[in-house]
Amino acid sequence: MSAYTYQYFNVTFPQDHQYVAHVEINRPDKLNAFFEAMWLELAAIFNQLSSDPSVRSIVLTGAGDRAFTAGLDVKAASEGLLSDSDTTLDPARKSVIMRRHIISFQSCISTIEKCEKPVIVALHGIALGLAIDISVAADVRVCSSDVRFAVKEVDIGLAADIGTLTRLPKVVGNFGWVKEVSLTARPFGAQEAERVGFVSRVYGTKGEAVKGALELAGLMASKSPVAVQGTKELLNYSRDHTVEEGLRYTTVWNSAMVQTKDVSDALLSGIQKRKATFAKL
Amino acid sequence: MSAYTYQYFNVTFPQDHQYVAHVEINRPDKLNAFFEAMWLELAAIFNQLSSDPSVRSIVLTGAGDRAFTAGLDVKAASEGLLSDSDTTLDPARKSVIMRRHIISFQSCISTIEKCEKPVIVALHGIALGLAIDISVAADVRVCSSDVRFAVKEVDIGLAADIGTLTRLPKVVGNFGWVKEVSLTARPFGAQEAERVGFVSRVYGTKGEAVKGALELAGLMASKSPVAVQGTKELLNYSRDHTVEEGLRYTTVWNSAMVQTKDVSDALLSGIQKRKATFAKL
Amino acid sequence: MSAYTYQYFNVTFPQDHQYVAHVEINRPDKLNAFFEAMWLELAAIFNQLSSDPSVRSIVLTGAGDRAFTAGLDVKAASEGLLSDSDTTLDPARKSVIMRRHIISFQSCISTIEKCEKPVIVALHGIALGLAIDISVAADVRVCSSDVRFAVKEVDIGLAADIGTLTRLPKVVGNFGWVKEVSLTARPFGAQEAERVGFVSRVYGTKGEAVKGALELAGLMASKSPVAVQGTKELLNYSRDHTVEEGLRYTTVWNSAMVQTKDVSDALLSGIQKRKATFAKL
Amino acid sequence: MSAYTYQYFNVTFPQDHQYVAHVEINRPDKLNAFFEAMWLELAAIFNQLSSDPSVRSIVLTGAGDRAFTAGLDVKAASEGLLSDSDTTLDPARKSVIMRRHIISFQSCISTIEKCEKPVIVALHGIALGLAIDISVAADVRVCSSDVRFAVKEVDIGLAADIGTLTRLPKVVGNFGWVKEVSLTARPFGAQEAERVGFVSRVYGTKGEAVKGALELAGLMASKSPVAVQGTKELLNYSRDHTVEEGLRYTTVWNSAMVQTKDVSDALLSGIQKRKATFAKL
Amino acid sequence: MSAYTYQYFNVTFPQDHQYVAHVEINRPDKLNAFFEAMWLELAAIFNQLSSDPSVRSIVLTGAGDRAFTAGLDVKAASEGLLSDSDTTLDPARKSVIMRRHIISFQSCISTIEKCEKPVIVALHGIALGLAIDISVAADVRVCSSDVRFAVKEVDIGLAADIGTLTRLPKVVGNFGWVKEVSLTARPFGAQEAERVGFVSRVYGTKGEAVKGALELAGLMASKSPVAVQGTKELLNYSRDHTVEEGLRYTTVWNSAMVQTKDVSDALLSGIQKRKATFAKL
Amino acid sequence: MSAYTYQYFNVTFPQDHQYVAHVEINRPDKLNAFFEAMWLELAAIFNQLSSDPSVRSIVLTGAGDRAFTAGLDVKAASEGLLSDSDTTLDPARKSVIMRRHIISFQSCISTIEKCEKPVIVALHGIALGLAIDISVAADVRVCSSDVRFAVKEVDIGLAADIGTLTRLPKVVGNFGWVKEVSLTARPFGAQEAERVGFVSRVYGTKGEAVKGALELAGLMASKSPVAVQGTKELLNYSRDHTVEEGLRYTTVWNSAMVQTKDVSDALLSGIQKRKATFAKL
Repeated sequence: MSAYTYQYFNVTFPQDHQYVAHVEINRPDKLNAFFEAMWLELAAIFNQLSSDPSVRSIVLTGAGDRAFTAGLDVKAASEGLLSDSDTTLDPARKSVIMRRHIISFQSCISTIEKCEKPVIVALHGIALGLAIDISVAADVRVCSSDVRFAVKEVDIGLAADIGTLTRLPKVVGNFGWVKEVSLTARPFGAQEAERVGFVSRVYGTKGEAVKGALELAGLMASKSPVAVQGTKELLNYSRDHTVEEGLRYTTVWNSAMVQTKDVSDALLSGIQKRKATFAKL
Repeated sequence: MSAYTYQYFNVTFPQDHQYVAHVEINRPDKLNAFFEAMWLELAAIFNQLSSDPSVRSIVLTGAGDRAFTAGLDVKAASEGLLSDSDTTLDPARKSVIMRRHIISFQSCISTIEKCEKPVIVALHGIALGLAIDISVAADVRVCSSDVRFAVKEVDIGLAADIGTLTRLPKVVGNFGWVKEVSLTARPFGAQEAERVGFVSRVYGTKGEAVKGALELAGLMASKSPVAVQGTKELLNYSRDHTVEEGLRYTTVWNSAMVQTKDVSDALLSGIQKRKATFAKL
Repeated sequence: MSAYTYQYFNVTFPQDHQYVAHVEINRPDKLNAFFEAMWLELAAIFNQLSSDPSVRSIVLTGAGDRAFTAGLDVKAASEGLLSDSDTTLDPARKSVIMRRHIISFQSCISTIEKCEKPVIVALHGIALGLAIDISVAADVRVCSSDVRFAVKEVDIGLAADIGTLTRLPKVVGNFGWVKEVSLTARPFGAQEAERVGFVSRVYGTKGEAVKGALELAGLMASKSPVAVQGTKELLNYSRDHTVEEGLRYTTVWNSAMVQTKDVSDALLSGIQKRKATFAKL
Repeated sequence: MSAYTYQYFNVTFPQDHQYVAHVEINRPDKLNAFFEAMWLELAAIFNQLSSDPSVRSIVLTGAGDRAFTAGLDVKAASEGLLSDSDTTLDPARKSVIMRRHIISFQSCISTIEKCEKPVIVALHGIALGLAIDISVAADVRVCSSDVRFAVKEVDIGLAADIGTLTRLPKVVGNFGWVKEVSLTARPFGAQEAERVGFVSRVYGTKGEAVKGALELAGLMASKSPVAVQGTKELLNYSRDHTVEEGLRYTTVWNSAMVQTKDVSDALLSGIQKRKATFAKL
Repeated sequence: MSAYTYQYFNVTFPQDHQYVAHVEINRPDKLNAFFEAMWLELAAIFNQLSSDPSVRSIVLTGAGDRAFTAGLDVKAASEGLLSDSDTTLDPARKSVIMRRHIISFQSCISTIEKCEKPVIVALHGIALGLAIDISVAADVRVCSSDVRFAVKEVDIGLAADIGTLTRLPKVVGNFGWVKEVSLTARPFGAQEAERVGFVSRVYGTKGEAVKGALELAGLMASKSPVAVQGTKELLNYSRDHTVEEGLRYTTVWNSAMVQTKDVSDALLSGIQKRKATFAKL
Repeated sequence: MSAYTYQYFNVTFPQDHQYVAHVEINRPDKLNAFFEAMWLELAAIFNQLSSDPSVRSIVLTGAGDRAFTAGLDVKAASEGLLSDSDTTLDPARKSVIMRRHIISFQSCISTIEKCEKPVIVALHGIALGLAIDISVAADVRVCSSDVRFAVKEVDIGLAADIGTLTRLPKVVGNFGWVKEVSLTARPFGAQEAERVGFVSRVYGTKGEAVKGALELAGLMASKSPVAVQGTKELLNYSRDHTVEEGLRYTTVWNSAMVQTKDVSDALLSGIQKRKATFAKL
């Protein structure tokens, strides 16, 4: 087992769920609000998990009772921005600096999507702004009934730029609803989130949501990792391409992957009515 | 305030909703059916609104009790077509003339989508054919319970070509339903429209629907116009591009937009617990 | 009427539904499981139907009470694969052979999507693996209440490669749900399928589902074939392209299609309150 | 013959070249430098020519001996910009105004590319900045030996934004050369332009270049307008799309166009060894 | 060796060039002009060659001294068209039939591009219309000095629709020249073709051109077939995609292909200074 | 000035060329052949240069007289591969490991293209395999007359996967030539490289080529960095997108960039006939 020692995140490996990693945002006294060091850590964690052969699926949660995350730590962010936005820079030069900053921030959050293993987010309590950017980069979302969501960015004078506006319309197939919540920043709760398909399931409490997410992750981790990781890759590729392109990429991908020993392992265990064991990946 | 004097549309600015424009299709004796002069006017109106700094969001409705719009005024249209379809033209030449005509018609309706400000449509009564083309070019759709929708074009021997077939599958994430209503022209009502996500909310009466739409528009108009207009642009861009491309465009867009004074105005008003005031745009 | 004589499929033309073809997978003793000769036949059938002027819409069902199809006939498939996977071939060469095989298989199933006429699938009983690949290539899906679906492929160590992972996210606008069922292979039933929009309607029994599908097909077949076939083409094109590209393709398509006699036939029959008759296509 | 009366352009119809329009930039005392009223006129002219049935091809030239065009009239432009760039606007709001301005400017120059008839540019003397934007929007470029080209924009602190950077790499298949001249603003002459394929032919004098362009335009105008206009459309479409998409668009386009009477007119005139006469388009 | 017995083509396997197939269009008395049975045969041949493990590269030539091919056999084609264009069909229905016809024709010629092995065309004499469509679907073009090319279609009232307008701009990086020859149908010879990059080499006589093509094919056939076929695939893919997409597809492709034994075979033969022998593919 | 201390590269800042960085591959005793530590360093260097405000353009060369680079250090590479390709892994798992490896390698070389500043490569002597991958990721290529190029990968049983097959067709507008040199691995020299547009200029000696490259870089570095960096970005973006998309991205980019002080600095220095000085970027 590789070491996962981080300052703002706990990474653990629940005994009941083999091959499952549990990543917890751990700054509960600040409602798990993010500043730059945190998203750099997040990226490091998901990059490490992506190629860790003892990990097959991942659950992401927030520590504490009150919030998954309140989003960007505006105070920390504005201090950082002050040093950046040197008053001697003209608007074009400031723009170059801002662009580098946004690219770096986006690319940290995108490590969740690029992670080769499926990621399930269990959301609870306050889940604003960056909470949405993070959760749409994951594969499956569940929540507890107390969750309070909002695409909060227009309330601070900005269009969301870390992924929400790009990925939310591809996660939820109700473009009018996506427009409404993004253009008004109005809050929405668990039931509405489930109705439009933003979350897959609503649990009574945070504890139940985390437990449910771990069980779902455990189920994915019990399957062939070749099959599961290929499925994540091909679904994400297909979302962004024509059917023709999706089928073509699939043929090239699977032309290697069907040579896995997992097929015979899976078939054999099916015949023998026992749980299959797959080699590491 | 600029002048908005048009023959087939009323454009008003409700006192209760600052920065909101209300556009009303105004040919109720003909069930608001459209002919060419009307869609040219529609385009002129939305182009004007798009860059009018005193407008931040728009509501589109139909005058009268009976219909949002019955669609194309087939009688007027067929008279127009007769003069076009000179019998001495070969099918290739007729095709060139038809193509110019369709491009022009499409481009008028697309001004709703291209309008920099969000557009909310409140639908009621008869809402056939062009009613769907128009409403899917808008950002949010609400309706009254008496609405009667149909993608009517196959009933007159045509595939819908003014936007319905292009945008409806991107507005409603249930492709089987989109296929069914488009291939059969069967009517559907408010409840079904809400269930599949075609409309966001159903109101009891037309009056309530218009009121609801104005309130929603008012809420959008109270937010930073930099944020709101950027959000519309980035959502529409992302709908049509890969996640990678969406994120890239977002970085360039926001590298300028985050330099707006609205961020500090919004933050300050948040601290001071008062309504923010934003400069015109 | 052309001859449709096939070994593993029944192709019939129900008297009550003019212009409707009924294709039935006919290997009920093996739960309609597929092997290569069957998907080659499927492709031949849909290619023939595509340009048959006496066919305007198609219903696809499975013979017998127990299954629409149990998917790939793993036993037959593994025998076929054995002869292919000559042990003297290196992994690159095996990959080339596998790629040719997958391309050929995909292209057979894609004939359903490429068929110029709309295809409605009525699903019942066991509907696993290839059942999903087939049904997402069709236009509309209905089912009986006893249906048992699963995206089964990860259970045999593979990512689904015959269309499910490519088309399912474009059929169902709930990406989290698509991810969950694809990454876990868990079964789901009729109610869940209807709730997420995978099927349009649930019928009590298989018989009712087939009847409902035939009626829907009959309704489509009663409309102008120029309009219906254009609508299918433009919806599928638009699904895969930007709004701008969708509108452009539409103009070129319709510039010829609006010259159909069906427009005046449809308008006239509307005025005369009788059923329209359209020329063959 | 329609009227073509414009302030800054001469539009004539040379007697020797039936169906050819000759557009001349006519501000020679200012080296044909452009300001806003001029590109608005340019757009009006090319939109008019695009659907004028008595025009089948177009030649674009600059009046006077010294310059095709020296590019943007910087003095006029900076005066215009001053009024726009109100000092009370924040950088985000200025950005919105600039974007509207660039979109409008680009869209005027793009009318050359969107014009349904082929456009040949004959360049001479000074041909800087906007001269390149304009000429890459045309179909064929020829020049006289005295021409002096430069992608001049970096010399005034800007990346070219009216089309050069977008279209030049698609006109000239030598990306290193495109980068070099765009990143340095260095001048280049007729021989170099011909060597890299930026111009198709170099003539001794301006007069000869114009004469050559008119002859080439005359040759195009003598062919079937259905064929010529379709060829322009399909080449421009194909430049921007995959081979697969290009072929698909071509099938839909030509499915109508092959029904032209021009095919039999062309074949018959071939058999009869006489010049074909084609109906207007 | 598989049998290659065709009516209008000779397929031979030159003794001097192991793994090279030589396909010859064989209707010299009609200047190798094409009618439908011929392009169906062409497709059958290239499909067969594509997966024939004893073939690693292909040369395509035309029999006789006078012509590679004069293009479409207009007489045969117009007879075929007569039966299709039933006078009772409206223009929309004719359009559907024409579209099916063009799709089928295109797809036959595209088998040259889709063939997994590289194809070199040696052109001579008359090489009009379809000669260009065919040669741009191949990988490399050489010619003899007597060749007479023309993109001939506008001379018969049509835009070329079998591939020339789609592929020529991607083969020759001089878009002005492509436009000129396509919009005028003017002839061009060997030297001009070489200067713009349409052909790679000009030989004195047809015999020398064929010999040169066979030698080039022989050189390709002496390399690892895994490497050569992958190179063709990746170049064609990259032509049509962004750099980002091209790199991504390449990683998936090569992740299997680098597992070939050919790498060690090639390295070993390099060390031992002998010709490498590669397993069949 | 930031520190640039690397093991396998020299990074210097020539006194004669302000703002120009000179990167030299420095392993001349091994013909500058690459192994993994080297491309990781290369990436670190170009990432550092990309945001270093004292750098405005870059020249890349190879140390020693004999080679720019002989490409991959096959000995080092095969040792690395042995440890990776554990014999207990099935082909699917090996494929996953290879894919990660190729992605990482590609992404290092792509830092040259992604570097915000223009990069000019001066090539000499042996320039095989990776030399091509590297140079096509740069903006401009020059060489000395003794250069010996080859797309060498097919000679070791592989399709080039680090960028050559993806970028070369976009750098050189002669697809037949690209195919020929890629499918045969045959060497080509300076004159041929210049003729097809692979290099922009041929110098007599390596020293002259480096001097020429530095002068060209110096010229670029003397221009507005806002303009130069924008030009690189927009040209690379446009290469990969439709004209429509290229223009749209350009408007957003320049809406911020035209607010630079460099415009007035450049105009003023033009009026005053002196060299402009631009703020850092």
